[in-house]
Amino acid sequence: DVFLALAQNFITQITHRISFTFSIGYRHQQTTAKRVEEVEFDGPCMKTEVPGPRSKSVVQVNFFCDYEESKGNYLVDVDGNRMLDVYTQIASIPIGYNHPALTKVMTDPKNMGTFVNRPALGMMPPEQFSEKLVNGLMAVAPKGFSRVQTMACGSCSNENAYKAIFIWYRNKMRGTPEPTPEEVRTSVINQVPGCPDLTLLSFMGGFHGRTLGCLATTHTKAIQKLDVPSFDWPIAPFPQLRYPLGQFERENAQEEARCLEEVEDLIVKWNQKGRHVAGVVIEPIQAEGGDNHASFDFYRKLRGITKKHGCAFLVDEVQTGGGSTGKFWAHEHWGLDDPADIVSFSKKMLTGGYYQKNSFQPDKPFRIFNTWLGDHTKNLLLTEVIKVIKTENLLDQAKRSGKVILEGLYNLQDKYPHLLSRARGIGTFCAIDVKDEDTRNNLILKARNKGVVLGGCGTQSIRFRPALVFTEHHAHLFLDIFNDAIAELK
Amino acid sequence: DVFLALAQNFITQITHRISFTFSIGYRHQQTTAKRVEEVEFDGPCMKTEVPGPRSKSVVQVNFFCDYEESKGNYLVDVDGNRMLDVYTQIASIPIGYNHPALTKVMTDPKNMGTFVNRPALGMMPPEQFSEKLVNGLMAVAPKGFSRVQTMACGSCSNENAYKAIFIWYRNKMRGTPEPTPEEVRTSVINQVPGCPDLTLLSFMGGFHGRTLGCLATTHTKAIQKLDVPSFDWPIAPFPQLRYPLGQFERENAQEEARCLEEVEDLIVKWNQKGRHVAGVVIEPIQAEGGDNHASFDFYRKLRGITKKHGCAFLVDEVQTGGGSTGKFWAHEHWGLDDPADIVSFSKKMLTGGYYQKNSFQPDKPFRIFNTWLGDHTKNLLLTEVIKVIKTENLLDQAKRSGKVILEGLYNLQDKYPHLLSRARGIGTFCAIDVKDEDTRNNLILKARNKGVVLGGCGTQSIRFRPALVFTEHHAHLFLDIFNDAIAELK
Repeated sequence: DVFLALAQNFITQITHRISFTFSIGYRHQQTTAKRVEEVEFDGPCMKTEVPGPRSKSVVQVNFFCDYEESKGNYLVDVDGNRMLDVYTQIASIPIGYNHPALTKVMTDPKNMGTFVNRPALGMMPPEQFSEKLVNGLMAVAPKGFSRVQTMACGSCSNENAYKAIFIWYRNKMRGTPEPTPEEVRTSVINQVPGCPDLTLLSFMGGFHGRTLGCLATTHTKAIQKLDVPSFDWPIAPFPQLRYPLGQFERENAQEEARCLEEVEDLIVKWNQKGRHVAGVVIEPIQAEGGDNHASFDFYRKLRGITKKHGCAFLVDEVQTGGGSTGKFWAHEHWGLDDPADIVSFSKKMLTGGYYQKNSFQPDKPFRIFNTWLGDHTKNLLLTEVIKVIKTENLLDQAKRSGKVILEGLYNLQDKYPHLLSRARGIGTFCAIDVKDEDTRNNLILKARNKGVVLGGCGTQSIRFRPALVFTEHHAHLFLDIFNDAIAELK
Repeated sequence: DVFLALAQNFITQITHRISFTFSIGYRHQQTTAKRVEEVEFDGPCMKTEVPGPRSKSVVQVNFFCDYEESKGNYLVDVDGNRMLDVYTQIASIPIGYNHPALTKVMTDPKNMGTFVNRPALGMMPPEQFSEKLVNGLMAVAPKGFSRVQTMACGSCSNENAYKAIFIWYRNKMRGTPEPTPEEVRTSVINQVPGCPDLTLLSFMGGFHGRTLGCLATTHTKAIQKLDVPSFDWPIAPFPQLRYPLGQFERENAQEEARCLEEVEDLIVKWNQKGRHVAGVVIEPIQAEGGDNHASFDFYRKLRGITKKHGCAFLVDEVQTGGGSTGKFWAHEHWGLDDPADIVSFSKKMLTGGYYQKNSFQPDKPFRIFNTWLGDHTKNLLLTEVIKVIKTENLLDQAKRSGKVILEGLYNLQDKYPHLLSRARGIGTFCAIDVKDEDTRNNLILKARNKGVVLGGCGTQSIRFRPALVFTEHHAHLFLDIFNDAIAELK
């Protein structure tokens, strides 16, 4: 009897704690112009609780999806339940389900060869490879970047960005890219000086992936790190701010100053003990860690500190990148005078990878390399995604929908102060806290059974991660259902 | 002006050293039944040197491919050169280019939803997910395995396999899967006991990937490791054998005994100093490291040592798996009484991942997890690949073609003893050594310009990695052209 390992990861505990029957009332059907049924649906439609009988029949416990039937902002499951998706496969669906522009890419006979035969992109790329990068990734490169390196996923992107940083730092220390014979010899056997004792500074609450290098900079939940050997690298506190940020500027600024001072102290101390800090890695909003924000000023000052101490500044935009904050890259809100050194991405960008400044390009081929270096099929899809974002003006839409969401969340926390707090967000990249973890999980389930898919983050937050095609209409619909779910919590 | 970072990895130095004009003579056209032009071509066809003018026009130096025009064993480049591919995108194309069975998967409207919308497989898998795993990965599971975990690439597969090993080992040491509060607290900040000081034993010459965890077990070339911090973990010698193995049994057995003794010594010593060896990771044939073989007996004894000392035994089949040795998994040649604990794969399997014994399944959800957990489109393609391998009996064909290749290589090294040596292989997974690195690189280029794509490995070896649709006819054709290329080296 085959038991699939994946089944372990299904949200067993949560799904079995509660089951509900329900009905759904819409109150905002009037708002914006509705998309026609061919592109999307006109609202959620629930036939069973989730997981329903067909989901359960596939594997013991879970929630299986019908990706052929899903459309736009609506995820359809195998029991025919149609749910407004405000989680989008852990924030990784950029322009909704089955967007016609993407279906066209998939059915274009010209693309078949690339889809069927996966090229080793570093060795034998397809002819249109450069063109697709120019019209895709490079067309949305953050200011200051003219180089990009593709990778397959977020973890691989950060792992290789870390390597690019270490290589850059050692070349700088050495004054030449040419290693000594001793460095060459010792590198193969994991010893100094070939494998130097450099470090990366990361922040408490940060999440940068789950492979061993990334995991050394991830500090969210014990379950992700327990029992896995790690690197002893400096960890700085991330500002714990009060929301809305604008209302607590003075005390938030103090908290940020405290954290920045700690960052600088750590860099100085670790450099002094010979375990140099080669770089600093940070998210524009700590997502998995609980949607923790810091002010744009904090990030500008942090960039200044890295510059002062010769550390690389790596901005991890794996979850924040791709437009949901209303700018294509969340760090573009900061208004940096001096761009970051590396910006990593994945999820809504479909491919993984990172932008890098020229000086981070390794001096020799094959220092940053692997078999596939990403997946060209994702580059083809991304090029269309970017076209759609531009022609449909989706960054502006994210701003407008985000405004509706955030105002709605403020209203809800005013209405239910004993349950909800700390509503926060930029664009549609919003979150709210629930009074405790159990209530949060309970609320996510209630919302799902009423036709809204949500995801948690941190210990007691709910993160909202709609696709870029999420309109003000969808925002109202979501808020109505969310309100109904909260009301049932009593 | 956009300069793409990837360009650095193109084999610039090699491609610029030599350029040639040539003509091609076939001598084995008579052999086996030829495939029709619709499925494949009847031989190489060179129009320019490689890279040709169109390749060069795309980016300064390189060799770009036309994946629409490529067929079966033939890779076509953008200058219309048609080359017999004996490298197959670094050993990652299982059944040749544009196999009709795979094109059918891609054009089946039923699959469109999965191709356009990438599911987060650990959260919301598509309905046919389990079925595809059962008919795909589980249909070819090595004996003793009833669990599989999918991942996106080879490095991610090994990184997560390492984590599964560390978790298993710590649970064993602790006597319970429940961590202490101290372990929970310290794990988040990279400190013992939460992040324990466990180690993995690997072998000199081994290659297991380039992310930081994998890289700590990779010991091939300095260029892959230089300047990157690493873990101080035990590294054992890999047997340096004389070929053909059968002719040097006694001295090879001595060398293997020496290495096994060293492995056991290392485990005992590292355990004694409290840096326990949680597992041993090894390839069935060290591929990137130079196609280094060891006897099946060596591997059986190594498995015994891991068992004796309570270490996990991880077989990395990323390059060897998928059938080219004549068995689906190279380690199935060993005839182990007790199966390995984990077997990792990628490349020709299209998806990454690993098989694991039940005891390596983490006790809690989300310990091994990431956004996508692979890519279901690759599972769909793999299911067809496996059907084709079975219905076309491609494992037997790999044995037959491999016999022709290896006999041909023996003849060539007899004919050119000053140039070639150490011909070796199992199935089509063959290699030969060239007298030095420059001559090896030169030979690869000469062969390419005559219409055969080859790849190097180790310091002076050429590795042969044809697809499973490589017949005896192709083997003869390859040998003729390779012979012509060698003859020109003089």
